[in-house]
Amino acid sequence: MGEALNGAKRTIMCGELRESHVDNSSTVMGWVQRKRNLGGLIFVDLRDRTGILQVVFGEEINKEAFEKADTLRAEYCIAVSGKVVRRQSPNDTLPTGMVELQGEEIKILSESETPPIYIKEDLDASENIRLKYRYLDLRRPDMQKRLIIRHKAAKAVRDFMDAEGFLEVETPMLTKSTPEGARDYLVPSRNYQGEFYALPQSPQLFKQLLMVSGFDRYFQIVKCFRDEDLRANRQPEFTQVDIEMSFVERDDVMAMNERLIQHVFKQVLDVDVKLPIERLPYKIAMEKYGSDKPDLRFGMEIENISDALKDTEFKVFKDVLDNGGSIRAIKAENCADMGRKQIDKLTDFVKGFKAKGLAWIAYKEDELKSPIAKFLKDEELKAIVHKMDAKVGDLILIVSDAKEKVVLTALGQLRLQIAKELELLKDNKEFRFAWVTEFPLVSYNEEEGRWEAEHHPFTSPMDEDIPYLDTDPSKVRAKAYDMVLNGEELGGGSIRIHDSQLQEKMFRLLGFTQEQAWERFGFLLEAFKYGPPPHGGLAFGFDRMAMFLSGTDNIKDVVAFPKNQNAVCPMTEAPSIVDEIQLRELGIAIDIKNEK
Amino acid sequence: MGEALNGAKRTIMCGELRESHVDNSSTVMGWVQRKRNLGGLIFVDLRDRTGILQVVFGEEINKEAFEKADTLRAEYCIAVSGKVVRRQSPNDTLPTGMVELQGEEIKILSESETPPIYIKEDLDASENIRLKYRYLDLRRPDMQKRLIIRHKAAKAVRDFMDAEGFLEVETPMLTKSTPEGARDYLVPSRNYQGEFYALPQSPQLFKQLLMVSGFDRYFQIVKCFRDEDLRANRQPEFTQVDIEMSFVERDDVMAMNERLIQHVFKQVLDVDVKLPIERLPYKIAMEKYGSDKPDLRFGMEIENISDALKDTEFKVFKDVLDNGGSIRAIKAENCADMGRKQIDKLTDFVKGFKAKGLAWIAYKEDELKSPIAKFLKDEELKAIVHKMDAKVGDLILIVSDAKEKVVLTALGQLRLQIAKELELLKDNKEFRFAWVTEFPLVSYNEEEGRWEAEHHPFTSPMDEDIPYLDTDPSKVRAKAYDMVLNGEELGGGSIRIHDSQLQEKMFRLLGFTQEQAWERFGFLLEAFKYGPPPHGGLAFGFDRMAMFLSGTDNIKDVVAFPKNQNAVCPMTEAPSIVDEIQLRELGIAIDIKNEK
Repeated sequence: MGEALNGAKRTIMCGELRESHVDNSSTVMGWVQRKRNLGGLIFVDLRDRTGILQVVFGEEINKEAFEKADTLRAEYCIAVSGKVVRRQSPNDTLPTGMVELQGEEIKILSESETPPIYIKEDLDASENIRLKYRYLDLRRPDMQKRLIIRHKAAKAVRDFMDAEGFLEVETPMLTKSTPEGARDYLVPSRNYQGEFYALPQSPQLFKQLLMVSGFDRYFQIVKCFRDEDLRANRQPEFTQVDIEMSFVERDDVMAMNERLIQHVFKQVLDVDVKLPIERLPYKIAMEKYGSDKPDLRFGMEIENISDALKDTEFKVFKDVLDNGGSIRAIKAENCADMGRKQIDKLTDFVKGFKAKGLAWIAYKEDELKSPIAKFLKDEELKAIVHKMDAKVGDLILIVSDAKEKVVLTALGQLRLQIAKELELLKDNKEFRFAWVTEFPLVSYNEEEGRWEAEHHPFTSPMDEDIPYLDTDPSKVRAKAYDMVLNGEELGGGSIRIHDSQLQEKMFRLLGFTQEQAWERFGFLLEAFKYGPPPHGGLAFGFDRMAMFLSGTDNIKDVVAFPKNQNAVCPMTEAPSIVDEIQLRELGIAIDIKNEK
Repeated sequence: MGEALNGAKRTIMCGELRESHVDNSSTVMGWVQRKRNLGGLIFVDLRDRTGILQVVFGEEINKEAFEKADTLRAEYCIAVSGKVVRRQSPNDTLPTGMVELQGEEIKILSESETPPIYIKEDLDASENIRLKYRYLDLRRPDMQKRLIIRHKAAKAVRDFMDAEGFLEVETPMLTKSTPEGARDYLVPSRNYQGEFYALPQSPQLFKQLLMVSGFDRYFQIVKCFRDEDLRANRQPEFTQVDIEMSFVERDDVMAMNERLIQHVFKQVLDVDVKLPIERLPYKIAMEKYGSDKPDLRFGMEIENISDALKDTEFKVFKDVLDNGGSIRAIKAENCADMGRKQIDKLTDFVKGFKAKGLAWIAYKEDELKSPIAKFLKDEELKAIVHKMDAKVGDLILIVSDAKEKVVLTALGQLRLQIAKELELLKDNKEFRFAWVTEFPLVSYNEEEGRWEAEHHPFTSPMDEDIPYLDTDPSKVRAKAYDMVLNGEELGGGSIRIHDSQLQEKMFRLLGFTQEQAWERFGFLLEAFKYGPPPHGGLAFGFDRMAMFLSGTDNIKDVVAFPKNQNAVCPMTEAPSIVDEIQLRELGIAIDIKNEK
């Protein structure tokens, strides 16, 4: 059984001791990182949240403490008091490396068995062991740093939003299931057996209602839930920075959110984000980068080479052009010597994105080498090279298809893949932001034969495109905007519809009957009868923001107690079996049909 | 359909206009509170979050705007631009009352039907209508003020905690059911059909694990859940300010939390809370006030008058004393003339708290009037009066019982009841804080024949009382503390057990087998093997804090979208029926047994 503190007070944290403290009497408390017994002296590296401090025990310093120190083992939790002295051999790798504490008194607050994982940075233990012993995994300094950054980011967001007149208002966790979008987590009601609450996928409807209420500027850092099969970097519960403002248009929302991001990056990382952030209409983003979240840290833009081939007799290209498709290409600089095997791999890669194949032209010193050279006229080949502005040593990679989306997506992905293989972004510390705007409002779901909202049904169409709602919905652009960072979506939002007639028209377009729309969103439509203000907002993925800020690409690194890929917490073993009586009170029974 | 903003920018909020703005051109946006057409002039009271501004439209100011203004109705949402002028007849009741805006241009952003509730303070509409049209109810300035205060309180908490080195760490919402305490809300798992997550009743275990992880100082403003039958001022989801710190003892935690509360009251209300906050051991609180959350804003303390009656021959009192009970009383000043009917009511009142009756002595000008006078000796009557320090005009109210708890609780409640009837606290604006300490660690549940934790099983006993764990658990006091404000519990916490042996002993005392303890809390017991630090914490009820700060006694006034007494949201109609397919995916079925 450990010793009690009994009035002992910590006077300073381990990582804070410096030369200016020499000759002070200090008391530190923490965990034994390492103990070395050099005969007459015992050196202990003591660790707390702030860092590591060397503590030295010696028979001549204090015999009792020395003997007690000899019983220490890794991860014992101790309190040590003594004098701060200058180290004889300073350690440059530690901020506290100029000093050490002479242990005059020691309390062993609690002992430790040998921990199942090492407490050190860049641990190689399996994820499952790390999650099972999460409380030990979280002792690792790199994990602590990330959660400290997450805390700082949340603080920076709140400070900024408060200063800008935004109110943090809590919205309900137990709410109504609206089976649009992802799958809801359900919560059975005990008072109304047979009925269910749903955990929110986002506070979207509530924040819009707060605007109807005149709160003017709302934000919240809030947990949201999606019961989806987990892809990498998804968690069943995740955190959003949720924002909504009234009496604004698109540019107002974007300008405010740019400044928020600038503030957060400055506060947390001392990085200056230059404003305004570059804007790319969706169409341009797709045409140049084949993606609605383009990574702008490198070039290799997609070019349309259809013109160069408009009179081609090469059947593959001719068919594509005759069917309204396009031929596009990217240029991999200094890759003309890429081997056939590697190109075959890239061909398989683009086929994964529905491309039918990958043509290429290698600009060698003495020739334009290409498997399709024999099908093309010399001037066509040259026109392609000219269009691509290729130089000796470059490799041109070509995809064609009758469907524009296939061409762009395949080349966009190929662009990223080549950048990865060429390590174009190795050691790149840049934060490259962009806004993508003017998204399509709806897209046609071929399978279900209906129009679907690209963002959600409350997104406003661009004013000038409203007439197309009746004639050609695919042409309607939305007042929507995504903030993209280094090729990932950091957040997105839109100006909302605030007119019930337009909202009902939108629901009709999306195939809701009036009854269905009212059943699901009746309270919003009802609210819109009473003078709703123009409003719009945005939500940032806070977990992803924390990942960027702490330089990790694993969401589990910025969540204290995450779930694994099966939505299980290996530490608590949630989910788990519950008492029959609990289910009876809820009026539900387990009914596994094994039809999976 | 409303007009678009089309580039119009708000330049100032309605409530912010002052004489210093005279001659400015301003644009305001908000809702029509009231419109008066005085022939050539139309006056509109325009409302936004910050207050009300008078806008005047006139044919001579701008004819077009004047005509458009004539179509306005209550709750239309509009934007108005014009010149700020001095009012001819200032309105002292409005902060903006010295000025008005001359409406030169008006945009009707959206129209409003006649709202089903009035948008004004101190509304009398039924709660159900208010909750159904919550977005309109929230337009009321008093509701907005309360949510603004709540926002400010959260900000003040976070600023203080951050400055004190606490990290806000998010703990899971989907966690493990631990059927200790209240009923859990369950969430069926789709990946593991037949298993369930639980929504947390508090992050207790996680915050203790964060201490084991070395985070040192944790806090969180966090949603918690309890599926209980709702009493007044309870919500199924509620918010806690949750705090935990390492390497501390009881006084450290109390001192830190006092300063937090001082900071919050100063920031939000500019009220100075004097520190240190008065401390009352549980035993004293019970003996003087008959409550573990005593209201100290008035006296009327309970006195033990057993000594004055130790030789009494009055059978009722004699039996009580012979059975180890006590006779106690409170003194209602200037109530000697209280009528028999009123005293009968008070007698019924104390019977509601298990007292067998209520004796009384009225100190009249000329006599000690009492229904028990004939059973008591004169010197006994006088001894009581002396002990109670009663004066002419006072009324002494006496309860006796063999069970001390019955006497104290009945008199404690009677004390509050009389204060209410006498309006002792009318217009009392005081915030009277107290700490109640040294709670019993456990209490005996007669029905179930077992010891129960008074706080929770992780609360540490006081060191000097540990020996009693084996001999007389009822004597063991806990290192627990509650912060009480004006007779209500604002928060509570304790120093935790951080020794696995002591923790296991505690579980044994509470009747858990080792298997049961490990099944439920195994991860905590396991964590305690690896050098847990001494730690303790506290949780404040944030909803209640917001209630105090905003001067309301209804929790629904400080929650944006609350549930009613049946845990229903009348606005969204949650909970509701869900699609059969959703249940099938979760492997559950509705199974209502109607056994209620």
